[in-house]
Amino acid sequence: MRFARVGAVGAERPVVVSDDGRLLELTGLGDLDALLGDLAAVPAAVDGETLRPVAQDVGLRFGAPIPRPGKVVGIGLNYADHAAEAGAPLPTEPVVFLKATTSVCGPTDDIRMLPGSTSTDYEVELGVVLGSTLRDETDADRALEAVAGYVLAHDVSDRAMQLDHGGTWTKGKSADTFCPVGPWLVTPDEVGDPGALRLRLSVNDEPRQDGTTDDMVFGVGEVLAYVSRLMTLEPGDLVITGTPAGVAMGQPEPRPYLRHGDVVALDGGVLGRQRSRIVDPAAEPTHPEAGVTR
Amino acid sequence: MRFARVGAVGAERPVVVSDDGRLLELTGLGDLDALLGDLAAVPAAVDGETLRPVAQDVGLRFGAPIPRPGKVVGIGLNYADHAAEAGAPLPTEPVVFLKATTSVCGPTDDIRMLPGSTSTDYEVELGVVLGSTLRDETDADRALEAVAGYVLAHDVSDRAMQLDHGGTWTKGKSADTFCPVGPWLVTPDEVGDPGALRLRLSVNDEPRQDGTTDDMVFGVGEVLAYVSRLMTLEPGDLVITGTPAGVAMGQPEPRPYLRHGDVVALDGGVLGRQRSRIVDPAAEPTHPEAGVTR
Repeated sequence: MRFARVGAVGAERPVVVSDDGRLLELTGLGDLDALLGDLAAVPAAVDGETLRPVAQDVGLRFGAPIPRPGKVVGIGLNYADHAAEAGAPLPTEPVVFLKATTSVCGPTDDIRMLPGSTSTDYEVELGVVLGSTLRDETDADRALEAVAGYVLAHDVSDRAMQLDHGGTWTKGKSADTFCPVGPWLVTPDEVGDPGALRLRLSVNDEPRQDGTTDDMVFGVGEVLAYVSRLMTLEPGDLVITGTPAGVAMGQPEPRPYLRHGDVVALDGGVLGRQRSRIVDPAAEPTHPEAGVTR
Repeated sequence: MRFARVGAVGAERPVVVSDDGRLLELTGLGDLDALLGDLAAVPAAVDGETLRPVAQDVGLRFGAPIPRPGKVVGIGLNYADHAAEAGAPLPTEPVVFLKATTSVCGPTDDIRMLPGSTSTDYEVELGVVLGSTLRDETDADRALEAVAGYVLAHDVSDRAMQLDHGGTWTKGKSADTFCPVGPWLVTPDEVGDPGALRLRLSVNDEPRQDGTTDDMVFGVGEVLAYVSRLMTLEPGDLVITGTPAGVAMGQPEPRPYLRHGDVVALDGGVLGRQRSRIVDPAAEPTHPEAGVTR
């Protein structure tokens, strides 16, 4: 099954996708965070009643398919080819960082660079949404049982702030709109093997990243178990599992960092597609709350 | 004014401290996060009605004085003497990291080390709780206007995980119970100058840290404004502003890292005092949720 949240920023409503591709409103069941523990039960809960299809307005906006997570855990350098292009050794244990939860936004919202940035980079990733609490887990397979579903995630990064201004990676990965998520939250049964997903990203229709999760250094279950031994993962938490090669930072000078007006498109197959316009607030001041999912 | 939250883990109730030091229940006003925007108005809201004093049971537990924050932002190396003992250069701009919000607990809850850790360290800090949204602020004084109040905070850190296992500092700073907060949330008028607070910490009654916030490299307003230009700060967010010298890592071998059974006591003057027992889960398995504030 696939779920999403549609509507204006801060007023998103949960929907489920019908077999024929329509968006059906999940009214009366609360937001998706209340359902993450047992998404498989949702059809049963709404059985016998006709769900109202969402009016497919031209301007229908998709928000992140989960409400604001309690935390966004990032895994760095988790593809061998990306670690190589970043000039980093292959990690011997998962590289963990946090993104501010205020960075989460919808899959077609504008991505607002830090003003005047010349080092904003893209990273297509597989995201994992927790459905139950995971703590001190040692077994990768058991860890997977805590997964509510998978999402396409974009780990936007300002490399200068990430690497050259002191502090931790967080600094360059936490700006508002630096974590577009969605459109779909897809249940594990529909995803199948999370280690066999193709992830692609293009900038202005030029292909930049094309990898498969089969190349991850640490698989999804292994990552979740590892993180759960450092901190408790809770329902609704989002773990993004690293990016394959092809980021701007990994390319020869002049590196093709994102610029005002660029359009970044992500394709995660069953996870859906994103399409985001890059905005430099120094070039185009707009309402700063635009796009941020509350 | 001083506020707190008392009661069992996950069932804390907000209280205000009366002029004569009694804890008065703030019933009917919601939890403290609903009040952060205008704490000064709380007495007016409850005026004319007698607030019920909390029964001062022997076992009365204080939780963190704020509900689970949206984010916990840490500032590293923000005291010259601590930067020196850490062998780090004095930062030229604030060093920013995030702690997992699941690390927040109450001021007398057990601190649970990562199992078998031999590098768990203490850090007494001034914490700042946001009362209003702060974004893209350039002025330190205006940034201070967004402060709801101040708290005593303990930035517990596992140095091996922070520094030697790949990834960012987050890894060693995010375990459950690694951020005891409170007991009090103290309003700015009662704190006075946040740059003139004495912060002390002892381990088993042996003094280890004794500093004043006057020695911060970047003052509270400066820190808040800087962070707000990287990510939006929201009401309830917690910013912890760095620690003075005296941590175990900064001392000669054998470094006096925390051990199972140690008692760490923090004194923040007007901010109150903490007293936490150190527990190694490898030595004393207990219910893992103990102490974690939901």
